[in-house]
Amino acid sequence: MPVTSAGAKVASLEAGKWPEDVGILAVEVYVPRTCVNQTELEAFDGASAGKYTIGLGQLNMGFCGDREDVHSLALTVVRGLMERHGVAYEDVGRLEVGTETILDKSKSTKTVLMQLFAESGNTSVEGIDTTNACYGGTQALFNAVSWVESSAWDGRFAVVVAADIAVYASGNARPTGGAGAVAMLIGPNAPLVLERGLRSLHMEHAYDFYKPNLSSEFPVVDGKLSIRCYLTALDKCYQRYSEKAGGVTLANTDYLIFHSPFTKLVQKSLARLKFIDFLRASAPDTAESATYAGMESLTGRTLEDTIGDKTVERLLVKVSSAEFSAKTSDSLLLGREVGNMYCASLYGGLASLFAT
Amino acid sequence: MPVTSAGAKVASLEAGKWPEDVGILAVEVYVPRTCVNQTELEAFDGASAGKYTIGLGQLNMGFCGDREDVHSLALTVVRGLMERHGVAYEDVGRLEVGTETILDKSKSTKTVLMQLFAESGNTSVEGIDTTNACYGGTQALFNAVSWVESSAWDGRFAVVVAADIAVYASGNARPTGGAGAVAMLIGPNAPLVLERGLRSLHMEHAYDFYKPNLSSEFPVVDGKLSIRCYLTALDKCYQRYSEKAGGVTLANTDYLIFHSPFTKLVQKSLARLKFIDFLRASAPDTAESATYAGMESLTGRTLEDTIGDKTVERLLVKVSSAEFSAKTSDSLLLGREVGNMYCASLYGGLASLFAT
Repeated sequence: MPVTSAGAKVASLEAGKWPEDVGILAVEVYVPRTCVNQTELEAFDGASAGKYTIGLGQLNMGFCGDREDVHSLALTVVRGLMERHGVAYEDVGRLEVGTETILDKSKSTKTVLMQLFAESGNTSVEGIDTTNACYGGTQALFNAVSWVESSAWDGRFAVVVAADIAVYASGNARPTGGAGAVAMLIGPNAPLVLERGLRSLHMEHAYDFYKPNLSSEFPVVDGKLSIRCYLTALDKCYQRYSEKAGGVTLANTDYLIFHSPFTKLVQKSLARLKFIDFLRASAPDTAESATYAGMESLTGRTLEDTIGDKTVERLLVKVSSAEFSAKTSDSLLLGREVGNMYCASLYGGLASLFAT
Repeated sequence: MPVTSAGAKVASLEAGKWPEDVGILAVEVYVPRTCVNQTELEAFDGASAGKYTIGLGQLNMGFCGDREDVHSLALTVVRGLMERHGVAYEDVGRLEVGTETILDKSKSTKTVLMQLFAESGNTSVEGIDTTNACYGGTQALFNAVSWVESSAWDGRFAVVVAADIAVYASGNARPTGGAGAVAMLIGPNAPLVLERGLRSLHMEHAYDFYKPNLSSEFPVVDGKLSIRCYLTALDKCYQRYSEKAGGVTLANTDYLIFHSPFTKLVQKSLARLKFIDFLRASAPDTAESATYAGMESLTGRTLEDTIGDKTVERLLVKVSSAEFSAKTSDSLLLGREVGNMYCASLYGGLASLFAT
């Protein structure tokens, strides 16, 4: 059971420096009790058998009934986190919500969560909501970690909430919905530490996925462009991260988890990282049983000219299947069973990895 | 002209500690070119003469034509900041937007601003949008400062944008609209430093001001409750801040700036701080020409029983008029002339103070 870190606070404030091992102390997940079986959805939609279950790699899709919304998801997951780990509400100094499920254009979900704090009398809780598609939960986590490392930290925990309800208009994207919330307790002396100085980002202006119709729950999606954006950002981030970390490759990495719009995209993403490793290797060994076996036909290809190339994708998925099974597949438990939880997806992946 | 702080970065990273004097290096303001004169608005609305100009203390109200929206306000103010101070886009490592003017429920205004960065090739820019009524700009500033103090800081600047368009349905609140954007450059060795360890907050769940009608620009406002929320939060924050700072009072403070929904509320707020000083003084001197002259009738009154008491408000405004003129009035230049800029209001106040 985590406790407040008053000692660490005093030491770090005195020295004007960061506390040690800042990261994730605990994770709580909440998903709705109701779901649609993807095989049945294929039949209902008149889609070919396997289109959702094999093509997308999805088994079930969670959805909320009319008694739940993103506020109730967030309330439930935060109370679960606090109760399960015996954290007192007065010991939380920051609470931030990453979501793109907007019930109000002004009042944040964070303030709704302040109801949970009312009895404790603790109103000194920094942080509000942060929004940009599925990235909100990650930015909320980064903000919380920076807060713990900053002079504003007062020795108390931060709580980060990532919560979304993903629903699509009827059509190709509908089976890629989902719903869920993850709450994380952040502080020093964490079992899961965010390594310092390795964070890598790619931000770009694009209209691949957006919600301009404010009175609709549905996003506007350009599926092809969205996948291109996802893979381009992945390419950039992996290369930047690998460089900062002194040459990370799939081979020297234990686990890789991804934001999962649907399982198959994650498998293609992991496969793409193997291609990046191949491109970065000075003399990639493509001999049978070697790391890059079966990839000789990719010599001379580039990241740019392979995005969307189905033949290359299939080849890469095949040659990276062992890495996918060993290092990524377990993290997709919630993704397969619940679907895309937008901001919560990546952290549902983290929880899945812990649970398997 | 500010420069990147690579030296400070190296020193602080090596020691694992915060760089010195983190704060605001530069401020840029943009307001629309069009405004409504409040005297003319009184006549148009059939309101009594002086209702808006004296009762609210407002002179003009800025508004956007159909060629501007919150995206264009933000684009303009960021480009202004960068060009005026000769900052290169590759020297920005964080960009965050505080706004409650929501044009899209998923895609952030921050990503729209990434268009300005395209030519530089810099896509490694952390930060997205952050929302909770008028507090978004302040949280964005706090997040940026924490980032500079954290291990994630890479020696580059942060840019914080606060931008909003405030429009109200016809009725009492309409003359309290406004529009504008402020951009701030954040880094170490700043002329305006955020003092460490003194930040004070009050967060509570309330439905005083919110925007549940997602297809409308107009908020739902309970004016009376909203003012009560404002003053209650002010009471708490001032008391907490004063305690942390070792007994701050109006007398030992040079300037006080406020979020300004309308000028008269700020004057009442400053007046209320004088009442808090009075309540906290062990033996407040109410003799003629003394600090608390004219306040003897307030002995025995409390913060709670004076909220909304017009007689007390008038008395407090009167006895604090010298402090208001000397320490706060100058900061209301933009507030009086442009109106409420929501997230940008407080920082428009800061810029007003610099300019006068």
